This record gives sequence, structure tokens and C-alpha cells, in this order.
Amino acid sequence: MSETAGINVNNRLHGVLAPVVTPFDAQLRPDAGRLARHCRWLLDNDVSLAVFGTNSEANSMSSGEKIELLDRLIEAGLPPTRMMPGTGCCALTDSVELTRKAVSLGCAGVLMLPPFYYKGVSDDGLYRSYAEIIERVGDARLRIYLYHIPQVSGVAITLTLIERLLRDYPGSVAGLKDSSGDWDNTRAILEQFGPEGFDVFCGSESFLLATLRHGGKGSITATANVNPAPISRLYREHTSDDADAQQAALNTVRDLFQGYVMIPGMKAVIAHYLNDPEWSRVRPPLDEMVGVERERLVASLQRTGFEMPGLVG
Amino acid sequence: MSETAGINVNNRLHGVLAPVVTPFDAQLRPDAGRLARHCRWLLDNDVSLAVFGTNSEANSMSSGEKIELLDRLIEAGLPPTRMMPGTGCCALTDSVELTRKAVSLGCAGVLMLPPFYYKGVSDDGLYRSYAEIIERVGDARLRIYLYHIPQVSGVAITLTLIERLLRDYPGSVAGLKDSSGDWDNTRAILEQFGPEGFDVFCGSESFLLATLRHGGKGSITATANVNPAPISRLYREHTSDDADAQQAALNTVRDLFQGYVMIPGMKAVIAHYLNDPEWSRVRPPLDEMVGVERERLVASLQRTGFEMPGLVG
Repeated sequence: MSETAGINVNNRLHGVLAPVVTPFDAQLRPDAGRLARHCRWLLDNDVSLAVFGTNSEANSMSSGEKIELLDRLIEAGLPPTRMMPGTGCCALTDSVELTRKAVSLGCAGVLMLPPFYYKGVSDDGLYRSYAEIIERVGDARLRIYLYHIPQVSGVAITLTLIERLLRDYPGSVAGLKDSSGDWDNTRAILEQFGPEGFDVFCGSESFLLATLRHGGKGSITATANVNPAPISRLYREHTSDDADAQQAALNTVRDLFQGYVMIPGMKAVIAHYLNDPEWSRVRPPLDEMVGVERERLVASLQRTGFEMPGLVG
Repeated sequence: MSETAGINVNNRLHGVLAPVVTPFDAQLRPDAGRLARHCRWLLDNDVSLAVFGTNSEANSMSSGEKIELLDRLIEAGLPPTRMMPGTGCCALTDSVELTRKAVSLGCAGVLMLPPFYYKGVSDDGLYRSYAEIIERVGDARLRIYLYHIPQVSGVAITLTLIERLLRDYPGSVAGLKDSSGDWDNTRAILEQFGPEGFDVFCGSESFLLATLRHGGKGSITATANVNPAPISRLYREHTSDDADAQQAALNTVRDLFQGYVMIPGMKAVIAHYLNDPEWSRVRPPLDEMVGVERERLVASLQRTGFEMPGLVG
């Protein structure tokens, strides 16, 4: 398969992935139909599917709800080879159940938070958590991408932990998403583990060019939910002459979302462009973006020439 | 029923409760038999059962595991009128399911964390989270105790939030556990809401006397797992002449556990006094306390005259 399709020769997902936002119906149930259509639009724009990420409100859904949703997406014909579901929960048993499900469906990988309730836990404890999941899943097809987002999870993935996991589970531990926003950390991981075939993804497209130039494999980024084509274009054209200009344009759009609460903001924008208010719903504890705030966000995007071509509800 | 039994005339749980530590078997499954025996010993020492608290490693267990464990405890003959299970999860649907279960079994109350993955969420969002759970459970028997432990959950229960919940759900919102360790916060809650019949529990017995003297109703405290009799005795005798001396003695024991990681430390001490190494297991990401560290903790306790009389494995 070609690299632009997001899958490299080793069946590893590379390129741009979106932590796909999850629509909810009036009873706040996950809406599999709308989600599947949004996933299809992302794939059409060369963006793969990191369903059940932070921006998917994944931790606001039960394991049972996520398992059912994954089944529904596969039934809808979406390719598991383009999926990297989030499967890291607080409870060991939830993480094992979700990861097993993803592997059994043929998902390309799983994006795994560390257990995030207890703070100040040791690298030993986190090592045992990942090791126990790998052993219990016990499947050679498992590809884990460690998820470093300490400002939300409160639990960091250190270089020492990565080193130990890679040493003991080189086949299963495939890479990492760095959402810390700390480029020094991303670069250190790229330099230390990239040469061993450890696939590093930045957690924001604002680091896409820097990540690719240091041997990283792409970005798993929220904004790919709303701005997929320009982001995946930069991935494909990152060696071209206008790469830096493309990066600057991506940053302009990204910055508009940063100023708002990101998840409700992206959902409000999708709702606006589809003229479908259903899309803007969030589960508590998040707040839906409505009224003036939403109008301001849309207006500021339109001033940049922002579009969502081909979006289908 | 008498106040010393931990239940007051309004069927509200008062007094001392332990977030009961959860034993795990060699496959890291919750061990209902050992847990039931420990619960029985706590009740014998006038301590009620806040199963599934932070110190119970509750968030390291799935909802399904907690529901099964609750059934097993009831089958073992433990009284639900002495139980306040923790039922607050990240996912709305998990919190609803667990809370419904606890109410249907006749539990005296539930101790409810706010959803704790997303940080910096609004009081509006937290209000909607609690309100949605109350509406969905839809049972007049529901008694919620809000759980404020911001240093672990990362999400605070503000006075504004309490005020709004109490105004709209005065029957269901029964009280709060303050584990912040910030006495000024506990006192502010006691002064503002105590007179309205809002039951405040301190999260450490080191504040027991101060809490009771300001109209609070007791303490939900980890150390009650290992030092139940002296803590519940101070609750009963808090107006006696030697109350301050009793408080000082409690603090001495408490401080020894503070110096160690609390959950593995308490489990190690139970394992030591029962001569039952099974008890010291923890689920990842926590680390079992073994070897020299455990010996030092036990020795330091013994120097204070610490005992666990009547403990039965």
C-alpha cells in the first residue's frame, strides 16, 4: 500500500490521525451513524482514525459503550487497518478488555493512556501496568502506542519507562503520541528511540514538520477532525519547498481552536458546517459551545478561508 | 438505632467509615472472601464501610468487578445500611450503573467523585454531571456524598457547586467528604452548609475532633482500615476530657502511614498481622510494599503500642 494511504510496508499506521470526536444523541448515547459518516470523511481526506482519544470524550464513555461503538464502525465498513482506538483506562481489566477487542477486530494499533487516577505513581508501577496488559492480551498482532499527555492524565510516560518497555516488549510497543506540547521531550524521544523503529507522533500538527524532519511518523491531532485535508497534505508534501508556508497556515487555524475549549469548539464547527445542531452535544463534564462564542469561532475561521469541503452528515 | 452503631435517626450514616482496602488474589482478581472478613472486623470496631474509595483501589477495578463484589458482600451478610460505596467514575454511564446498583441494594449512601479525566472543567459541567446521575437513577432513596480530593482527582468540588446542587437536589445531596487536607476549606463547608443538614466528613482522622466540634458528622479515613477502634472511640468520646489526648495518639499512628505510600502500607500491615502475604498485593499502577520498607513500618508502629486486636483473616 502507498504511504499516502497512511499505512507503511510494515502494516504500521503512519501519517495523520484524528482522535475522532464522538457525536451523542439526545439521550447522550454515542451516535454510531454520525460517527461513521465523520470517519468516512476523514479517511477521504487521508486521515486515519484514532477513535476513543481525549478529544473523542472516550473516558466519558464506559468500556461497554466503546466496544459496541467499535463493532458498529466495523459493521459500517470502516477499515480496522486505519484505526488506532484508545484503550487505556484506569482499571487494568477495562484496558485488557478494550485492547483485546481492538486486536481481535484487526485494528492497526491501540493508543494507550497509563492508568490515570493515582498520581505520583512509580515507573515500576506503570511498567507493570503495561506489561500486564500485553501479557494478558497475549496476541502477536498487538501494537501499542504509549500516550503521553501529562497535563490531562496527570501521569507521565518517561524515557526510562519507554526504554524498559521497548527492551522487554519490542514487538508490542510500537510508538508514542506526545501531547505534552514540550518539543524538547518529543525530540529526546525521537532521538533516543526513533532509530530503533519506535514510531513517534506529535499530539498537535503545529509540530508536524519538526516531527517529520526528526524522523517522526506523523501526528495524532484533534484539529484533523475539522481541517484534515491541509494537515494530511503537509504530511505528504513535507519535503516540498512550500512546507514551511503550509505549516504556518495550519498553525493559524489551530490557534483559533486553542483559544476556545477544543472539544466543544470542534463539535460546534462541525454542527455549523453541517447545519446539524445534534453534532454540538457533549457529555458532562464538558459544556456545549453555543451562541455568541460559537458564532465568533466560526467567523474567525472564515476569515482565514477555512472550509470543510465534502463534509457529509 | 444508636449513634454508636454509625447510623443516626434519619438513617444517615454518621461516625467513622473506612475506604476499605481491597485484597486481590494471585490473578489480581478482587478477593471477596478476604474483603468480607475485613469488613466484618471493621464493623466489630464500630467503623462503617466506604467500600470502593481511593484507598480501595476502586478506580483500578471495572464497574463490572465492583458490582459483582458488592453483591458478594451483601451475600456474605454485611449490612448495606452501613455501606457508602464509591460510585463516581469518569464515564457518566458507569457512575449511573454503579449508583443504581448501590441504591437497589439498600446502601445508606454513595461517595461520588466528579468525573476526573478532563481538568479545568466548569462548575456548570460538574453540576450537569451530578444532576444527570441523580435524574437517571431517579430514586428517592439515593443519598450522595460529594467527594473532594483535588490532589488526586484533579477536579475540585467548589462551594458554589455544593450550593447549587443542594438547592436543586436537597433530598439526594446529603453531604461531602473533604480529603483536601485543607482545614480552611472543611470549615467553610461546615459553616455554610452544615446548618442545612449537609453532613460533612473529614478525609483524615487528624481532623476528626475539629470536624466534630464544628458540627461535622465524622470521618471517612484510610487509617480506619488498620486502627479502627481508637478512631471510632474518639468519635464516641469526642466531648470527653481526654479527647485531645486521644486525637494526639491517633495522629501519631496516622503520621507513620503518611510517611509511606498509604495503600500498599496498610495492606502490608494487615498482611503482617494476619501472617497472610496474600493481603499485600496491589493492582498496578501501585507497587506492593515488601522487604525492609515493610519491616520498618511495622517496627515503627509497634513502638507506639499499635495493635490490631481481633483481626481475622
